[in-house]
Amino acid sequence: MTVDAEALSAELDRIRLELQTLKAEKGKQNITVGDYLLTRLAQLGVTAMFGLPGDFNLGFLDLVEDHPQIEWVGNCNELNASYAADGYARIKEGTLGVITTTFGVGELSAINGIAGAYSEMVPILHIAGVPSTVQLKSKPLLHHTLGDGRFDVYQHAVSPFVVHQAHILNKLDAAAQIDFAITECITKARPVYLTLPTDIVHQEISVERLSIPLTSTAPPNDPLTEAFVIDQIHERVKEAEGDVVVLVDACVIRHGVRKELAAFLKETSFPVYATPMGKTAVDEDYSRYGGIYVGTLTHPDIKEKVENANLIISFGSLGSDFNTGNFSYNIPKRRLIELHSNYTQVQYARYDGIGMKQMIPRLSEKLQHFHTIAQKIAVPAFAKSLPTEDNQTISHLWFWPRMGYFFNPKDVIVTETGTANFGILDVPLPAGAILVSQILWGSIGWSVGSCLGAALAARDLGKERVILFVGDGSLQLTVQEISPMIRLGLKPIIFVLNNRGYSIERYIHGKHRKYNDIADWKWTDILSTLNDHGNVETESYTVTNKRELSELLDNQTFASAKKIQLVEVMMPALDAPQALVRQAELTGKGNAYGGAKD
Amino acid sequence: MTVDAEALSAELDRIRLELQTLKAEKGKQNITVGDYLLTRLAQLGVTAMFGLPGDFNLGFLDLVEDHPQIEWVGNCNELNASYAADGYARIKEGTLGVITTTFGVGELSAINGIAGAYSEMVPILHIAGVPSTVQLKSKPLLHHTLGDGRFDVYQHAVSPFVVHQAHILNKLDAAAQIDFAITECITKARPVYLTLPTDIVHQEISVERLSIPLTSTAPPNDPLTEAFVIDQIHERVKEAEGDVVVLVDACVIRHGVRKELAAFLKETSFPVYATPMGKTAVDEDYSRYGGIYVGTLTHPDIKEKVENANLIISFGSLGSDFNTGNFSYNIPKRRLIELHSNYTQVQYARYDGIGMKQMIPRLSEKLQHFHTIAQKIAVPAFAKSLPTEDNQTISHLWFWPRMGYFFNPKDVIVTETGTANFGILDVPLPAGAILVSQILWGSIGWSVGSCLGAALAARDLGKERVILFVGDGSLQLTVQEISPMIRLGLKPIIFVLNNRGYSIERYIHGKHRKYNDIADWKWTDILSTLNDHGNVETESYTVTNKRELSELLDNQTFASAKKIQLVEVMMPALDAPQALVRQAELTGKGNAYGGAKD
Repeated sequence: MTVDAEALSAELDRIRLELQTLKAEKGKQNITVGDYLLTRLAQLGVTAMFGLPGDFNLGFLDLVEDHPQIEWVGNCNELNASYAADGYARIKEGTLGVITTTFGVGELSAINGIAGAYSEMVPILHIAGVPSTVQLKSKPLLHHTLGDGRFDVYQHAVSPFVVHQAHILNKLDAAAQIDFAITECITKARPVYLTLPTDIVHQEISVERLSIPLTSTAPPNDPLTEAFVIDQIHERVKEAEGDVVVLVDACVIRHGVRKELAAFLKETSFPVYATPMGKTAVDEDYSRYGGIYVGTLTHPDIKEKVENANLIISFGSLGSDFNTGNFSYNIPKRRLIELHSNYTQVQYARYDGIGMKQMIPRLSEKLQHFHTIAQKIAVPAFAKSLPTEDNQTISHLWFWPRMGYFFNPKDVIVTETGTANFGILDVPLPAGAILVSQILWGSIGWSVGSCLGAALAARDLGKERVILFVGDGSLQLTVQEISPMIRLGLKPIIFVLNNRGYSIERYIHGKHRKYNDIADWKWTDILSTLNDHGNVETESYTVTNKRELSELLDNQTFASAKKIQLVEVMMPALDAPQALVRQAELTGKGNAYGGAKD
Repeated sequence: MTVDAEALSAELDRIRLELQTLKAEKGKQNITVGDYLLTRLAQLGVTAMFGLPGDFNLGFLDLVEDHPQIEWVGNCNELNASYAADGYARIKEGTLGVITTTFGVGELSAINGIAGAYSEMVPILHIAGVPSTVQLKSKPLLHHTLGDGRFDVYQHAVSPFVVHQAHILNKLDAAAQIDFAITECITKARPVYLTLPTDIVHQEISVERLSIPLTSTAPPNDPLTEAFVIDQIHERVKEAEGDVVVLVDACVIRHGVRKELAAFLKETSFPVYATPMGKTAVDEDYSRYGGIYVGTLTHPDIKEKVENANLIISFGSLGSDFNTGNFSYNIPKRRLIELHSNYTQVQYARYDGIGMKQMIPRLSEKLQHFHTIAQKIAVPAFAKSLPTEDNQTISHLWFWPRMGYFFNPKDVIVTETGTANFGILDVPLPAGAILVSQILWGSIGWSVGSCLGAALAARDLGKERVILFVGDGSLQLTVQEISPMIRLGLKPIIFVLNNRGYSIERYIHGKHRKYNDIADWKWTDILSTLNDHGNVETESYTVTNKRELSELLDNQTFASAKKIQLVEVMMPALDAPQALVRQAELTGKGNAYGGAKD
């Protein structure tokens, strides 16, 4: 399927589901509050709910378990569940990730995952099952409380990490509150926290509102301002004589602008580069795509092309340290235009409320006449190439390019914070492949939970392979989340980069310190140990040199990913991708550990 | 050693350490801020620091790794690290648990453990390595942030769960801030949060303050008020004609009053009972000890004795739902006196600032003349007895009493929220045995991390065996924390109660629901899979019936616990201790899931 056909097909599925839902509700006058919430989620294409049971959410879980479209995942712990909801939402664009936890203990365990989704702009709805409305008022000394009647402390704790909180305290406004909460979550692409008291879940409300679809689109741009901004941009492009470079970044993905951007690039033919967080926002085999720009850490050919352009139009930029080579862009504001989800910046002028999603098609139209000029701008080839090394050690320098020959179109690739996030950058990925990583928040262990969610979403979307790259250190934080992958029949290929410790930390500080060491587990026993009754077929491998790894990658049975597989890749403890080594140096300097004895 | 000799020996160790520290510092004029903090912790008997490395704490970890008295544990994730610090502090009374994490991602992962320590009154110092003071001011778009310059959100999030926050922003007041933070943590027996910027760690300050020992005692009671309160209590005891029952609870343990209480009981001879959270606050083989009181869930003999006494003196009570049989005490205030860490309640009158630790010795003196009368009050025997069942199934009814014959004096017993917390209650434990459980906060998975910390503390105190009881559901949340136990050569016996799911939830709601099921792991492979290079000797067993379990328990090699051992105990999915069944019923009613289809 082409991208457009895929999008149409996804939209068809969504509408079909909505139709089914409404038919099912037809004739019914009432629905429980819990089912109202589930119906809304199903309408938006949610097919999985992450989380754990706890005594304050069990009544709601009855409804989840009985729901025809939503599958209860049953994670191993709440942090992992939040990571899974995050991975799910990243792959299934236009919908949201949902996690259900219990009061206090459960929800607090998930807070790092929620904060990460806030930071990285991923829409997660966090539903916390809380005590009954009677108990919320009388505040008895319940378990899962601090013992002092402060029942609102969990709301307080999560408040910096959500764009909205909905506390359903009666059935009268339950539907309105739920609708608003979900809409906020999707349109702002950030977490929302919703509390559901035990005695509210099964109260009945009217189905009426369910026939009004929820909108996931942002409010429209003011037409006069938008026209003015488009003129301004047009003027700047004219002044630049069409010598324009496009830079795509994280928010293109997070705010669902991939399609509009692809059309813009095709119509204008401007050369395009991506930041680390924008990787795969544009298909990497696109002829006008030149690779990754990351400030001073950029390949010199690309750096020169980007920084010497007369004008740079950036889409959805997110200027974090690891995304910009430690803030080392050499692009003066005078030559820069930034399009964001809710504002536009033209040189020094900021236009609030002018979002890119709606403006891009009109901007395309205005700028398409530069096509001929733009086509003449050379773009360095972003092509695969495998360096030759005269030894069998699996170095990062060799490993990542080698993986480039393993990837298929539409693979979902999940990389962990650390060596993997950096190593993957210079590997050209096939068209339709999606890279999922958490570069800004950078919580180690995230990729394992995220892979579970991504794999569930990928199954929905008919994507065949999910490939995880995780270091041994990071995997220890969240290893149990491999268990639900096995139980649910998901079949990711898990590459465990075994370098006996936290390599990213070693490069920042403490290269030979014991605190950066970890226990060396029997990695190839993980799948069998966490298997449910040993019922599911799994396979594990250890590769210790280039030849073994290449043979495995070339094996068609392995590559077809018909079962869950884990590959332990033995790598030197003190090796890392060059981009990481240089970033770590810069980070280390910022930390300024004065007299530290490394 | 007797209890007094043990206490003297512990005090001797403490003083010796302090002396050593001061000698080491003698002649030195300056010390780094990081080492100042470590010296203070070592003076208080801290020998282990929990946590994970992260780029904002690496410079501090250099100092930890080089410190002669403090061992860096290196946990598998931060939540587990906080649980471990909690378990450590519970066993090593008079000192504190310490956890070090990194900015944002690390510290937020630990927040549930910190909240639990607040709820259960356990002193944990949480040290977060944060960006340099320069970056804290300029607020660049660093990784581990929300991307919006809000650097203070993590302080905001943790604020409900700590009694104090110390933000070290310059070396001038660093020592004073550190001293105050540690003192608050110990005297209030609750978590304190301290941030340490990367560039402050190695700045040098004077050693001068280190020669002034930190006090861990609460401020003295006002003598006149105290004398009045003692008179009041004496009057009430007289009116009661010496028919007094003592009820001991959690805060006796948390506020270090075991010794004073034991002397009080000996001098007065009043009968004594414990709540679930007060279990082992008094040696359970003490002749005047009658067992556990938990409201309507109490054994009828005990219930009658406690509730019919003319006067009940409660020590350190904590009236949470699971600690009181869902608030079902039948003790009118008129017949109740409550001694707390910082106030005393005599019938309806509250006396703030009158704490029990200092008052108890004087109260003992005043009440000792009731000894002869009190001695005549009968106390039901709290004795071991093994029910006979005519089948081989390992039921809870049989399992817990059977374990009673396995325990040794001074065993450290850790029980998980769920069946274990309830099952252990009716088992009389030997003198000196310590029970560690988390009944108020009740975060599943806690016991595994806690066991790691408890085992490290037990090793310090020369206690030989640490025994963990954890359900299969709970173990899945935190399983990786068995890895540091192996790596550090700790030798707990881990009983995994395999009943294929969350049994406590099943009894509250959803007995046959799939959401209460879990994957059935290969439990006996866990130790070998998580072993460091497979270097450490481990052993695992599965017992499927009474005979197999009994044989194992009677095996001297097994019982001597010379290596780490895991026992998978096969139990029916729908069996639970009676106390749990009844508590769950009451909890389920409170939740009021209206039309739930169970």
